[in-house]
Amino acid sequence: MASPKKKLQGLVAATLTPMTENGEINFSVIGRYVDYLVEEQGVKSIFVNGTTGEGLSLSIAERRRVAEEWVTRGRNKLDQVVIHVGALSLKESQELAKHAAEIRADGIAVIAPFFLKPWNKDVLTDFLKEVAAAAPALPFYYYHIPALTGVKIRAEELLDGIQEKIPTFQGLKFSDTDLLDFGQCVDQHRQRQFAFLFGVDEQLLSALVMGATGAVGSTYNYLGKKTNQMLEAFEKKDFSSALNYQFCIQRFINFVVKLGFGVSQNKAIMTLVSGIPMGPPRLPLQKASREFTDNAEAKLKSLDVLPFTSLEDRDVEACS
Amino acid sequence: MASPKKKLQGLVAATLTPMTENGEINFSVIGRYVDYLVEEQGVKSIFVNGTTGEGLSLSIAERRRVAEEWVTRGRNKLDQVVIHVGALSLKESQELAKHAAEIRADGIAVIAPFFLKPWNKDVLTDFLKEVAAAAPALPFYYYHIPALTGVKIRAEELLDGIQEKIPTFQGLKFSDTDLLDFGQCVDQHRQRQFAFLFGVDEQLLSALVMGATGAVGSTYNYLGKKTNQMLEAFEKKDFSSALNYQFCIQRFINFVVKLGFGVSQNKAIMTLVSGIPMGPPRLPLQKASREFTDNAEAKLKSLDVLPFTSLEDRDVEACS
Amino acid sequence: MASPKKKLQGLVAATLTPMTENGEINFSVIGRYVDYLVEEQGVKSIFVNGTTGEGLSLSIAERRRVAEEWVTRGRNKLDQVVIHVGALSLKESQELAKHAAEIRADGIAVIAPFFLKPWNKDVLTDFLKEVAAAAPALPFYYYHIPALTGVKIRAEELLDGIQEKIPTFQGLKFSDTDLLDFGQCVDQHRQRQFAFLFGVDEQLLSALVMGATGAVGSTYNYLGKKTNQMLEAFEKKDFSSALNYQFCIQRFINFVVKLGFGVSQNKAIMTLVSGIPMGPPRLPLQKASREFTDNAEAKLKSLDVLPFTSLEDRDVEACS
Amino acid sequence: MASPKKKLQGLVAATLTPMTENGEINFSVIGRYVDYLVEEQGVKSIFVNGTTGEGLSLSIAERRRVAEEWVTRGRNKLDQVVIHVGALSLKESQELAKHAAEIRADGIAVIAPFFLKPWNKDVLTDFLKEVAAAAPALPFYYYHIPALTGVKIRAEELLDGIQEKIPTFQGLKFSDTDLLDFGQCVDQHRQRQFAFLFGVDEQLLSALVMGATGAVGSTYNYLGKKTNQMLEAFEKKDFSSALNYQFCIQRFINFVVKLGFGVSQNKAIMTLVSGIPMGPPRLPLQKASREFTDNAEAKLKSLDVLPFTSLEDRDVEACS
Repeated sequence: MASPKKKLQGLVAATLTPMTENGEINFSVIGRYVDYLVEEQGVKSIFVNGTTGEGLSLSIAERRRVAEEWVTRGRNKLDQVVIHVGALSLKESQELAKHAAEIRADGIAVIAPFFLKPWNKDVLTDFLKEVAAAAPALPFYYYHIPALTGVKIRAEELLDGIQEKIPTFQGLKFSDTDLLDFGQCVDQHRQRQFAFLFGVDEQLLSALVMGATGAVGSTYNYLGKKTNQMLEAFEKKDFSSALNYQFCIQRFINFVVKLGFGVSQNKAIMTLVSGIPMGPPRLPLQKASREFTDNAEAKLKSLDVLPFTSLEDRDVEACS
Repeated sequence: MASPKKKLQGLVAATLTPMTENGEINFSVIGRYVDYLVEEQGVKSIFVNGTTGEGLSLSIAERRRVAEEWVTRGRNKLDQVVIHVGALSLKESQELAKHAAEIRADGIAVIAPFFLKPWNKDVLTDFLKEVAAAAPALPFYYYHIPALTGVKIRAEELLDGIQEKIPTFQGLKFSDTDLLDFGQCVDQHRQRQFAFLFGVDEQLLSALVMGATGAVGSTYNYLGKKTNQMLEAFEKKDFSSALNYQFCIQRFINFVVKLGFGVSQNKAIMTLVSGIPMGPPRLPLQKASREFTDNAEAKLKSLDVLPFTSLEDRDVEACS
Repeated sequence: MASPKKKLQGLVAATLTPMTENGEINFSVIGRYVDYLVEEQGVKSIFVNGTTGEGLSLSIAERRRVAEEWVTRGRNKLDQVVIHVGALSLKESQELAKHAAEIRADGIAVIAPFFLKPWNKDVLTDFLKEVAAAAPALPFYYYHIPALTGVKIRAEELLDGIQEKIPTFQGLKFSDTDLLDFGQCVDQHRQRQFAFLFGVDEQLLSALVMGATGAVGSTYNYLGKKTNQMLEAFEKKDFSSALNYQFCIQRFINFVVKLGFGVSQNKAIMTLVSGIPMGPPRLPLQKASREFTDNAEAKLKSLDVLPFTSLEDRDVEACS
Repeated sequence: MASPKKKLQGLVAATLTPMTENGEINFSVIGRYVDYLVEEQGVKSIFVNGTTGEGLSLSIAERRRVAEEWVTRGRNKLDQVVIHVGALSLKESQELAKHAAEIRADGIAVIAPFFLKPWNKDVLTDFLKEVAAAAPALPFYYYHIPALTGVKIRAEELLDGIQEKIPTFQGLKFSDTDLLDFGQCVDQHRQRQFAFLFGVDEQLLSALVMGATGAVGSTYNYLGKKTNQMLEAFEKKDFSSALNYQFCIQRFINFVVKLGFGVSQNKAIMTLVSGIPMGPPRLPLQKASREFTDNAEAKLKSLDVLPFTSLEDRDVEACS
C-alpha cells in the first residue's frame, strides 16, 4: 500500500507540453518552467500529460520522456509530480503507470476510457484497478471529466468502496460543475483523507466552500499567484476578498472563453505571461490566432496580471 | 417603471399545483399551503406556475385561476408572489403578464421559449421585452434554465444592457450549475440591485459564496426550514455549520435523485412532509410509485426531517 | 371508430402561417395558398399548425381560427386537411382536437409533450389517448420528432398495440433519420394499413425504399412539383431518375442548410417561389436576412426551380 | 499516387479481434476466420482494427501484429484488407500507416481524433493528410462516425477538394444516418470513382438507393450472406425482395439493440454463428451476459440464420 509523503493539496498546475515550431517536444525549457511555477506563481505541484499537456496527442514513448523530464527537473523544487497515465488502451495505461513508478513520480492519475466506454461504475473500477495494480506503490487519482469523455458515471458512486478494490486510491480530480456529486464525494468520504481536487478553475471558490482540498487546472500556470491569494483569503475567512479574487479571475476567463479557449490558447497565454515559449500545439489542434493573443494580452494588462504601460490600458475594474 | 416594495430575496418556494385524484386543480388546499410555508418552513415568497407547478401543463384559463388563488390566499401573509408567465406563444405570455398585473402579483418571471428557439440574445431579449411590456408596473425576472430549454444563451450576456430594453428587469432565476456565468452576472451588475436567485437547490451554498441574493426551488416547500438554517449560518460566517446543513440536504436529494426525482416525486414528498394532499401530477407525468414514497419517507426520518419513531430508524449521519 | 374517406398518402405540405408585417395572421391569402399548392405544386393534402406553421407560437384562439380557414378554403379542392393539435397542456390539446372534429377536419396529429416529458411509451400513449378521445371520429396521427422534443421513445415500440388504446390511430409522421426504427414501424404494422409519412424532406428517397407511404414537410410548399416527379419515377421503378430528382432537391436544401434553415427561411423561400406573401415569422423567430433571400433566389434559379433570366445564372448541375 | 488493383466495393466485414479468456489476442483462429468469411458469408474484404476490432483498446504493438496476421492469412483469399490506423496521437497513426504499407495492406482508414478535436474541416484535413503522407502508396479512406467522435464536420464539406490535399484519397466509411450529407458526398463526387461505403448496417438499403457503392460493418461477419442476398436483389431491381431481406436483418438488429448491442455482443453472436471462439472483449468492455447470448441464439434460429431444431422455434416472420 502507498504511504504518500504528504497529501496532494493546494494548487496543482496542469502543465502544458512545450513544443518547437515544427511540433517536436521542446524539453529544453522544462527546467525554466519549473522555476517559473515555483518562484513566480507559488505553485509547487504539477499534473503532467493531462488534457492541458496534450497527453493523448503524444506517443507513448513521448509521454514517458515528458514525464521523466518533469520528475527530474522538479526534484527538490516541486512538492509533487503526478503523471496522468490514462489511455484508451489498458495495456498502454499500465505501461505508463509502471514507468511512473520507475521514475519515482509522486502519483498517477487516470481518466475513464472514452471511445469504447465502461457501462457502469463496476467496469470502470475494474479498468482503473488494473492500471493502479501496475504501480502498486504510487498514490492513485481518478480524473473525472464527464463532459469530455461522455462517461456519465457519478463520482460519488465510484468512490463507494473504492479502496477495497484500489488500495492506493488517494483522491480525484473533479472536472465538472455538478457540486451535488462533488459535495457528496467530500461528505461521504471525508474521514479517509482523500484529496478532493477541483478542476473547473473559473469557479474554484464554489468548490472550496463545498470542501475541496485543492485544485488542478491549466490557468494556475499563469494565474497561480492570484488564485493563491484567493485561497489565502478563503483560509482566513475573508470571503469578501476571496470573492473579489474569484471575480477578477472570472473576468479574464470569461473574456477568453468568448474568443474560444482551449489548449492552443493556454499555450499562447502562458508564453505571454511567463516569457517561456510554449510553441504551437500539435494537430488536431492549431495555433491560437494573432488576434486572440493580442486581445488576451490587452485584457491581462487591464487586470494587472501583465504590467500595463499606460494609464489608458487600465481597466476600471482592475482587480486588487 | 416598477418600484418594488422591497427586493425579492431569501428563499422562494416554487409552488406545486395541488390536484385532486382525477387531475383537476385542488384550489381548496392553497390557503393551508400558504400557512404551512410561512409557519412551518419560514418561507415567505413564492414562485407560481413554474416547472414545479406544472405551469406549462395547465391551460391558460387554469394558470390565471391558480395565480389568482395564490395572490388572494397569500395577502398579508406572504412577502412576494411572483407569477411565472412564460409560454411558447408570445400572445399567451402577454395575456398572463397582463393578468398578473391585474391581480396585483408582486412580479412576473419568464422562461426562454424552447420549441422554436431564439437564435441569439437579442431575439430573446426582444421576446422578453414584449412580455414585460404587457405588465409595465411589475418587476420582471428572467428564468434561466438552459438544460431544460436547450437555449444556450449565456445569462451574463443577456443581462448586458437589459434595463435599456426592459426597464422593469429586476433579476433572474438562474437554474444551472455554470457558476462562471452566474458569477459574472453578479460581478458585472451588482450596482443595479438585481435579485440573483439561484435555482439548483442541492448546491445553493456554492452560489451563496458567489453572491446569490436568494434562491427559488421546489425543495424549499419541505426543506425550507433546514435551508434557512444554512442561510443563517452563512450570514454569520459560520461556514462549517453551513456546509453541514448543505451536506444534510444533499444526502436527501442525492438519495431521491438516484430513485428518479421530478415534479411527481416532489408532490409525493410534500404530501408526506406537510400532510397537505398534493395529489397526482397531470399527464404527461405519472404519480410517483409507492416504492418511491416509502423510500423517501424512511430517508426523511433518518435525516430528522420527518419525526422518527424508533432509534433504529435513525441514520448515523443524521443532520443536526 | 373512424372510417376515413381514404388513406392519407403522397405529399402533404406542412403549411406556413402567413402573417402581416406587424405579426398578425394574414388570413386573406390562405385561399390563394390552397390554389397554389394544388395547381402549381400538385400537392393536395396539408398539415396545419405544425412546426412549420408556428403552431406552438400561436394562441389557442389563433390556432382554432387558422385551422378553420384552411378547412374552409380547402373544401372541394384539397384531399385531406390534418390539424396538428399537440400542445404542452393536455387540456388545450383536447380543446383543439374537439374543435378539429367540429370543423370537420380530416384528421389530427399530436407531438409528444416536451417540457415535462413522458417517462416511457406507456405514459406517452396515455397522453395521446386522452387527446384522441376528444375527437373520436377523426383519424389520429402521431408526430414523431425526437430531435426537437428530446423524447427518446422509439416509434416502433409506441406502435406496438396502439390500436387497442387508440382505436382511431391511423399512422405517423416520422421526422427522424433512424430508418431502423422507421423500417420496423412499417415491417411490424404493414397489415394494418397505417400511413407511414416521412418527415425529413431532404432524404425522402431513403424512406420510400423502406416503405414510406407518403411524406409531410415544409419544402413541399415550393418543391412539391419536383418531389412529385421523384415519387413518380420511384413508382415506375426508374431509380436512376428518382435519384437525380433527390440529388437536385438535396443540392438546394444542402445550400440553405449551410446558411441557416428554419421556419423563417421557409417563409422567405415560399414568398419568392409562390409570389404569395408569407410575411415574417413571430417571435422568438426573426425574419430571414436579405442576404439569405438573395442567395436562395440565385440557387433556385440555378436549379431551374425559379425561372432563370440569363444563361450565366444556370448551374452546370441544373436538374432536369 | 496510389493505383489500387481494384475499387473497394461490396460488403466489407469490420473484423472482431479474437481473444483468449485471459484477454490476450488469439491469433490462432484468424486463418479460420478468413476462410469462414469467404466461404460461409461470401465476404471478401475486411476492415481491421476499427471500432468492432477494439482497435483503440489495443496497444500499438498489438495493432501492428493484428494487421500483419490478417494480411498474411488473407493473401490469395481476400480481395482487400484495409487497416484502420486512426489514433488520438498523430505520431502513432503515422507509425501504423507506415507499417500498413510495409506489410502491403490494400488501404488505410482513419477516424477523426476525438479527445482534443479539430475545430473545422481544414484542420481535420491537415491531420488526415499527415497520416496519409506516411503511406503514400496506399489508398486512403476517411472513417466518418460523428455520433461516436463528437466531431460535427460534414463529410460532404470535407470531401470538397480533398484530393488536392490527399492524393491517395479513395473514399469514406460513412457511419451516420444523415443521408443528406451522404447523398451530397455521392452527388458531388461521383465522377471521381470514390468508394462510398455505408456503415449503418441496419439501414443499408436506404443508402444503396442513395448511391452507396459498398458497406463496412460488424454484422457482415455473420449476416454477410443474407446481406449479399439483399445486394443482389437490389442490383436486379427486385426492390420488394431487397426490402424483405432488409426487414429480416432489421428484426434481428432491432431485437439485440433492445438488449444492449455493442462489440461485446457482436463477439458473442459471431461465436454462436461461426463456431469460431471470439473470446471476451478487453476492458473497458465486459463479456456479454449469458442471458443475452441465449436470447440472441433463439432469435437467430427463429429467423433461420442459425438452423432451428424444432418447428416451435420458428418465427412466423422467418425471412426467406
